[in-house]
Amino acid sequence: MRCLYFDGQLKYRDDYPEPAPGPGEALVRVRYAGVCNTDREILAGYKGFTGILGHEFVGVVEQGEGWEGKRVVADINLGCGRCPRCLDGLPNHCLDRRVLGISGKDGAFADRLTVPLANLRAVPPGVGDLEAVFAEPLAAALEICDQCHIRPSERVAVLGDGKLGQLVARVLTLTGCDLTIIGRHTAKLVLLAGRAETLLEDQAASLAPFDLVVDCTGNPGGLVLAQNFVKPRGRIVLKSTFAGDANLSSTFWVVNELTLVGSRCSLVGSRCGPLAAALRLLERHLVDVAPLVGGIYKLADFPAAFAPPGGLKGIFDCRPV
Amino acid sequence: MRCLYFDGQLKYRDDYPEPAPGPGEALVRVRYAGVCNTDREILAGYKGFTGILGHEFVGVVEQGEGWEGKRVVADINLGCGRCPRCLDGLPNHCLDRRVLGISGKDGAFADRLTVPLANLRAVPPGVGDLEAVFAEPLAAALEICDQCHIRPSERVAVLGDGKLGQLVARVLTLTGCDLTIIGRHTAKLVLLAGRAETLLEDQAASLAPFDLVVDCTGNPGGLVLAQNFVKPRGRIVLKSTFAGDANLSSTFWVVNELTLVGSRCSLVGSRCGPLAAALRLLERHLVDVAPLVGGIYKLADFPAAFAPPGGLKGIFDCRPV
Repeated sequence: MRCLYFDGQLKYRDDYPEPAPGPGEALVRVRYAGVCNTDREILAGYKGFTGILGHEFVGVVEQGEGWEGKRVVADINLGCGRCPRCLDGLPNHCLDRRVLGISGKDGAFADRLTVPLANLRAVPPGVGDLEAVFAEPLAAALEICDQCHIRPSERVAVLGDGKLGQLVARVLTLTGCDLTIIGRHTAKLVLLAGRAETLLEDQAASLAPFDLVVDCTGNPGGLVLAQNFVKPRGRIVLKSTFAGDANLSSTFWVVNELTLVGSRCSLVGSRCGPLAAALRLLERHLVDVAPLVGGIYKLADFPAAFAPPGGLKGIFDCRPV
Repeated sequence: MRCLYFDGQLKYRDDYPEPAPGPGEALVRVRYAGVCNTDREILAGYKGFTGILGHEFVGVVEQGEGWEGKRVVADINLGCGRCPRCLDGLPNHCLDRRVLGISGKDGAFADRLTVPLANLRAVPPGVGDLEAVFAEPLAAALEICDQCHIRPSERVAVLGDGKLGQLVARVLTLTGCDLTIIGRHTAKLVLLAGRAETLLEDQAASLAPFDLVVDCTGNPGGLVLAQNFVKPRGRIVLKSTFAGDANLSSTFWVVNELTLVGSRCSLVGSRCGPLAAALRLLERHLVDVAPLVGGIYKLADFPAAFAPPGGLKGIFDCRPV
């Protein structure tokens, strides 16, 4: 089958063996798959992954115990089901965790992939394929609301106007909070008009401090920037994952009594996790993802999909030609 | 001036003296004012109030230190500013609290009323008068989100499909939570299509239990009903205020380790309280209140306004004839 395979270098292949579902797994035909910054970080060495990239997708089940023909998205974390963390209800923190297209398991930039049945979520009829392909990153945005009580009366800032920042802003505006997005790209900030105050980073120096700051910059400087914007006793939510370390001062957090909250993506295996909530928000037409589509590409055109116009979401059309 | 005056009986008057703003108060010309269930409870004896009814309104400031000409809504709680609770930042729990149209202070079913300047909130240009008149009850709905962390992954039920239940449902759907509204009126439940699951009360017996249940029934039976629907260790949010007591079993709450959260309305004097958040949700077009307007009435037609068709919101048009 066709796929994008990474082994230190990303390659388009059309000779990759078809995957065979193991026990408790479904075989899924991919329709669309989205490119995430994490995919770019994997190309830079993050996780030392070898295999087929891609963890944001919508597809149709071809084999899988009653799921056949259903349109699905999936939780991307694969717990072993046996370790203490899995038994403690935290399979997304499994000690032997695999992650679709990120760690130990082939992903969705392909004709087909296999996914545990427990990870599948049916896409409601009112949600289109090009909306559903955003369900996984939207769930990652919603994870913030599962972890943190964000009050309508609070002042909240999102740092970063990229793909994740856009989704986080679209989720946080729903809380009614006093929301400001601080970015570096006028063309991306414009997409948030009517949802939040928007500001270029170099105009943000004199802002009143925020109760909660979400770092969606995707780079090591984001946390330091967040520290500049947060109130004493405030909260910083860390969403950036990147290859390499950052040079940080934990003393600043102690002195200012900050709470730091690391936030990643949705729970696996929970009927009501953020992935289900993401599908509900799409079904309720509360989050508009269409403006975030930067372009739709064939797998063979992957260099363009990884750098779409405007820096927005590149999406692979993986349907049969 | 014209007003609706209550002294054990509700009367329309056109000879009431014009109010004179005291120090730190604005004089506001009322445009529209909404009828709340609390107004009905006052007619039944709640709070033993005497004076002009009405606490939901939008108007234009006629006198008031720079506010002249501005379109406003207002926080309805008037703290004394001197007692320990006011000094502790809780003016809405002031020991000598007055409440517009509810307790110790004339309200908005009138040509004009006076309001402390600190309670005013300017209505953004994109929010119409017939939307802004819902800002106060919408803030009361949002107070739930200020008090309780409602996770996108949780199962939440709202009991009651009336005016408050409708607004609470419209706010809670924004969280992405798995939301069910349980009511008694098909015609009102229909208004929530696409936002939540809806069920008639007598069809709800076999539902799986909920993490959080909000009682918006407005009657003493609501809490008992909520107890039937909530999980052990779950939360019940109490929004109903009514004249009289209810016969309750607090042992049930202990045995089932329930958390009960009394929830009323927005903070006064806080720049970022739920009232500001309510205006933001209206400005962001995230809450649609138009379907909740049951009818628009002149003050003299108050019996009809207190019982509009479909049991929805009666609104007084208080503008000059």
